Amino acid sequence: MTKAGLFLTFEGIDGSGKSSQARMLAEHLRGLGYDVVLTREPGGSAGAEEIRSLVLEGDPDRWSAETEILLFTAARRDHLERTIRPALAEGKVVICDRFADSTRMYQGLSRGDLRGLVDQLHDLMIGREPDTTVLIDMDPETGLSRAKGRQGTEERFEDFGLDLQQQMRAGFLALADEYSDRFRVVDGNRDMDSVAQDVTDIVLQALR
Amino acid sequence: MTKAGLFLTFEGIDGSGKSSQARMLAEHLRGLGYDVVLTREPGGSAGAEEIRSLVLEGDPDRWSAETEILLFTAARRDHLERTIRPALAEGKVVICDRFADSTRMYQGLSRGDLRGLVDQLHDLMIGREPDTTVLIDMDPETGLSRAKGRQGTEERFEDFGLDLQQQMRAGFLALADEYSDRFRVVDGNRDMDSVAQDVTDIVLQALR
Repeated sequence: MTKAGLFLTFEGIDGSGKSSQARMLAEHLRGLGYDVVLTREPGGSAGAEEIRSLVLEGDPDRWSAETEILLFTAARRDHLERTIRPALAEGKVVICDRFADSTRMYQGLSRGDLRGLVDQLHDLMIGREPDTTVLIDMDPETGLSRAKGRQGTEERFEDFGLDLQQQMRAGFLALADEYSDRFRVVDGNRDMDSVAQDVTDIVLQALR
Repeated sequence: MTKAGLFLTFEGIDGSGKSSQARMLAEHLRGLGYDVVLTREPGGSAGAEEIRSLVLEGDPDRWSAETEILLFTAARRDHLERTIRPALAEGKVVICDRFADSTRMYQGLSRGDLRGLVDQLHDLMIGREPDTTVLIDMDPETGLSRAKGRQGTEERFEDFGLDLQQQMRAGFLALADEYSDRFRVVDGNRDMDSVAQDVTDIVLQALR
C-alpha cells in the first residue's frame, strides 16, 4: 500500500458511466487492501453539499454564470480542506467523481467564454490538481440517452441536448491534451467490465 | 434629482450606529424626492440572503476563512448584479450598509492576514467600488457595549471583544486613508441627529 496518498478524478460527459466506474474502482482497490475515500463534486463534504443544494436546486437562472463559479469554488475549497487533503495526508486513495476539470468545461465553456475566469479563480483559491484524471470518453448520443434515463431533481446540467454534449466531449478531449501529464483517456463505448479493466490498469500503475 | 445614480456605502465597527444612519439618510433623501434603494451586506438580494444564512448560521468554525471569503464574494456578486447595478442604471441612489470594505477588514484582518487574497478576489469578481463611503468612526468601548445590547442569532462578528474592536477601528481609519478619494469619516461619538447632519451634508454634496 502506498504511503503518499493518491488523488484520482473521473471526468466525462453525462451518461459516460464515470460514476459507476468510480464506484467499481473503489471496491476493487478496497479488495486489494487500499484505504479508499470515494467522493464527488459538487459536494463531498458537509458544507460543500449544502452549497451544492443552493446551486443545483430551484430556478436555473437564479445565479449568473460568475456567481455559480464562485459558489462551486467555495464548495471545492471546503471539499479540499475537509475531505481530500486530510485523506491524502493519511496516505489514502481519494477517488473523486468530477473535479475542477468539470468546472473548466461546464462553467468555462457552456455559459459564455469564462474559461479564463475559471482558471484564475482556480489558481487563486484551489491550486491543487489531481495526480491522475481518468476521462471516460463516450459517444455523445449514447451518453445523452443514458443520462436521460435517470433524470432526477438535479437535471440542470443534463438538459442541454446533443449539440452541447458533442461540444463537451470535444472539450474534455482538448483538456486531456492540455493536461496530458495527468489525463488518461479510456474508451467508454464498451461493456462496463472492459472499461473497468482499463481503469484498473491505469490506476495500479499510478499507485506503483 | 441626479440622473447617473449614486452608490453610497456605510462602514464602521459594530455598534457605530451606521445602520441607523443609513436608514435615516434614506428617509431624508426620499423626503427630498430622490429614488432610494436601501440595502445591506452580506445579503441584499434573494440569492445573497440565502448565502448569508449559510455563512452566518451554525458552528462558527464550519467554514475556513478562505471559503467564507468565497461565499461572501458570491453573495456580493449576486447583490451587485441583481440589486445595485439595476438601481444605479435607473438613476437611483443606492445606500448599502457594509460592502467590500467590511470584507477587507473582517476577513482580511481578523482571521489571518488574508487582505491580499480579499483584494485579488475583489478585483477579479467584483471590481466596482462605491462612489462615496461614509465611515462612522466610534470609540470601540462604546461601540462594543451598544452591539452587545442587541445580540441576535447572528452574533459571530460581534463576539470578538474590545481588542479586536480597537484593531477594527484602526483598520477602518487606515482604509479611509488608503481610499481617501471616496471615504468620508464622520465622528460617531455624538448624538444621532448631529451625526445625521454631517452625513446629509456629505451626501448632498456628492449628489450635486
